[in-house]
Amino acid sequence: MNDQSRLDLYIKLVEDALERYIPNTPVAQGRLIDAMHYSLFAGGKRIRPVLLLEFCRIAGGEIERALPFACSLEMIHTYSLIHDDLPAMDDDTQRRGRPCNHKVFGEATAILAGDALLTAAFETMLDADNLEGIDPTAALSAAHTIAWASGAYGMAGGQQLDLDFEGVPQDFHTASLVHSMKTGALFCAAAEAGCLLGGADKSLINYAISYANYLGLVFQIQDDILNVTGDQELLGKSVGTDVLNEKLTFVKVLGLSRCKELVEELTQTSLMYLEPFSDTGFLIWLTERLAHRKQ
Amino acid sequence: MNDQSRLDLYIKLVEDALERYIPNTPVAQGRLIDAMHYSLFAGGKRIRPVLLLEFCRIAGGEIERALPFACSLEMIHTYSLIHDDLPAMDDDTQRRGRPCNHKVFGEATAILAGDALLTAAFETMLDADNLEGIDPTAALSAAHTIAWASGAYGMAGGQQLDLDFEGVPQDFHTASLVHSMKTGALFCAAAEAGCLLGGADKSLINYAISYANYLGLVFQIQDDILNVTGDQELLGKSVGTDVLNEKLTFVKVLGLSRCKELVEELTQTSLMYLEPFSDTGFLIWLTERLAHRKQ
Repeated sequence: MNDQSRLDLYIKLVEDALERYIPNTPVAQGRLIDAMHYSLFAGGKRIRPVLLLEFCRIAGGEIERALPFACSLEMIHTYSLIHDDLPAMDDDTQRRGRPCNHKVFGEATAILAGDALLTAAFETMLDADNLEGIDPTAALSAAHTIAWASGAYGMAGGQQLDLDFEGVPQDFHTASLVHSMKTGALFCAAAEAGCLLGGADKSLINYAISYANYLGLVFQIQDDILNVTGDQELLGKSVGTDVLNEKLTFVKVLGLSRCKELVEELTQTSLMYLEPFSDTGFLIWLTERLAHRKQ
Repeated sequence: MNDQSRLDLYIKLVEDALERYIPNTPVAQGRLIDAMHYSLFAGGKRIRPVLLLEFCRIAGGEIERALPFACSLEMIHTYSLIHDDLPAMDDDTQRRGRPCNHKVFGEATAILAGDALLTAAFETMLDADNLEGIDPTAALSAAHTIAWASGAYGMAGGQQLDLDFEGVPQDFHTASLVHSMKTGALFCAAAEAGCLLGGADKSLINYAISYANYLGLVFQIQDDILNVTGDQELLGKSVGTDVLNEKLTFVKVLGLSRCKELVEELTQTSLMYLEPFSDTGFLIWLTERLAHRKQ
């Protein structure tokens, strides 16, 4: 299977499973389910679930069994986007080329849709029907890793810092801290949970986490670059918003040309950590692709 | 041990454990942790954790082992109050005699504090350090029960319906549906998870769930009564707000005097479901106390 076919396969598996885990069947609170689906199926890149599935595979596991965990990461990522876009937070209007969730469903339902997606992530990972053939202790560990990375010491804490630092002069180290929590934590959790479900041993897991940490950094720096130089049409969201909102970005603390160099350097650093694994062709391809993406 | 002492003991165990699970140690995102603590330690009644611990005990389990799950219910309940009070939702200003979370920390941090509490609930239930001596399969089942009850088909779904039905004429059955999701689901999850952790058998669990479902109904009807007849000082929140906000309440659909009768009738119904259990003195006392509470 070539790399693009593998990526397409993973995305299809994830999207089909998301439909199964959160079925859009008629219920009284249908507006809430509609709002969850609206953002869940808005053409995301599915990077976090893809990372989890691939680490599970190269660690020797079966990708189908890892699907509840992969999908949970996407539900958590989606909830965070819905809440980040709210008027009280980043006050965005467009996301992935469409109006933000609260612009379509109103703020109250958008808040609840985020809450319900976060909850659904755990419901999916803890449902015995989804865990056939998985060792319960491995399931608990993988779900715990994802919980930790999403909370006050990971993604949610990073978002708080991002808000605290708006308009405050900062340096590279602060930007790294904020983004390693806001973006990196979930990338690391994807790699770690994938390894845990695949049965990798502890030393290998540490390499996977380091790789994912650098990949997260590369991803975020490229994100900041695209917010300055990107094509609004391709990105599906407004550009130039970081400067406008006085956001703490890598471009702001390092300048555009140093950021471009850093993407190349850190991409190579991240790939170094894949060396103890075998069959890493797809991850190398994916890393390069994310580092040089235009959208 | 008399009933009041048992209640005091449970509340102390839960509050000490909450401090351990979410320590307020100095971190960069300290504002977020402060916001979480502000609402978590605001003098809540801790009914849900108390129910869970007591069902665990009468099913034959050790209450200390059930503490992560009991505390998780309180984190989830607290997150729901923070989000429900937001301007985009019920737009409240007072809760438990103090300004609402968003009035103290701002809307953005209040949203994140809710998100982080919901996440912390799962982190706590899934942390191997907290699960010593618990069968992993029972832990997964109990956590799954709590996840299901909190999400789109339980509490979050109920809140969506509550918003949808504002100002719309309704009947008793609709009010029951909304409140069995919004309040009842978490009461039922407390009873069920307690039984699961205590090792109760399936038929007994169904009785516990039915008891909790009626208790939730009694609790909510009394809540609606107190919103009309209650003492603002005692309650620590404004009264008369349901009428003002055109909320779907039991008082609205049934009138005050029928509601008072129903509290008595449904209290007796709930207690009927405790019959298959032994050592139910405390639960009977607690049920009567909640039905006749003034705050």
